[in-house]
Amino acid sequence: MSVWETIRGKRAVRVFSDEPILEADMRRILDAGRRTQSGYNSQPWAFIVVTERDKLQRLSKIGRSTGHAAGAAFVVVLLTPPPNDTYWRDMFDAGQAAAYMQLTAQELGIGSCPASVYEVELSREILGFPPEWDLKVIISFGYPDKSQYPQRPPKAGTRKTFDDVVHWEQW
Amino acid sequence: MSVWETIRGKRAVRVFSDEPILEADMRRILDAGRRTQSGYNSQPWAFIVVTERDKLQRLSKIGRSTGHAAGAAFVVVLLTPPPNDTYWRDMFDAGQAAAYMQLTAQELGIGSCPASVYEVELSREILGFPPEWDLKVIISFGYPDKSQYPQRPPKAGTRKTFDDVVHWEQW
Repeated sequence: MSVWETIRGKRAVRVFSDEPILEADMRRILDAGRRTQSGYNSQPWAFIVVTERDKLQRLSKIGRSTGHAAGAAFVVVLLTPPPNDTYWRDMFDAGQAAAYMQLTAQELGIGSCPASVYEVELSREILGFPPEWDLKVIISFGYPDKSQYPQRPPKAGTRKTFDDVVHWEQW
Repeated sequence: MSVWETIRGKRAVRVFSDEPILEADMRRILDAGRRTQSGYNSQPWAFIVVTERDKLQRLSKIGRSTGHAAGAAFVVVLLTPPPNDTYWRDMFDAGQAAAYMQLTAQELGIGSCPASVYEVELSREILGFPPEWDLKVIISFGYPDKSQYPQRPPKAGTRKTFDDVVHWEQW
């Protein structure tokens, strides 16, 4: 699939089928994240991949909208540095890595959805990551549940229009 | 080109040829940014597209590494909200939009490179955007200068290894 078709067809997927994901596909998704560009090549991220069902269920409770993790084939826990002088750049770069992973998944037919984390210390307890890493976002991955996502294009109209977003030459 | 091939072949392009870019291609790149997902669908961005040479030259001086803007076919000025309670999420989402635009460009054979902005007030003077928007990143786009970027794969080895980045099930 082309990049443009992948972007045009992308939708948030929060309900997943039981179909397992090949390890090769998981590794490709993670490798896309690893390869992402970053400011001054800082690579301000580490990934914890979770596939164990009981752990996924615990992770589903670390935010207000993390519920979809419970049924995911796997979750990528996207660790980032704690707030610092160039924090904006770390989070910008983490966003790029999320996009690379999710578009790579989409091309493989694998749906995904990110969610904000509110319970960092609980997450730390579940996953054991050290204080030099913070956690703001997890991403659930899995094949879409076909009863929830029939073959149809995603609905349009929830984005601002092109002319609302784009200014030419100046504001 | 597939998403995966596009990601694998991606390199930062900072020196551009004079070849103009079709308006349809520019619009596709911008539309990819517009379509990007964002937390709670907040779409925390606005884009100013700059093609005028004198303006590009002025923009090349708004940061330490913005020099490449002077020779770009066009620059996308990626406006984001000023720091706020969920600033991390705005910057995360802006990073996703940057990735969508740059991967869409790469598929079209158009190179790009982002750069951090340090002179926000000077940028505001050049572009006229209002106080409710802040500026951290611009992205230069253009066809790669063939004398600088001969047909060869990008060099490997500047990224952390897969095993350095990826942890399985827990830290």
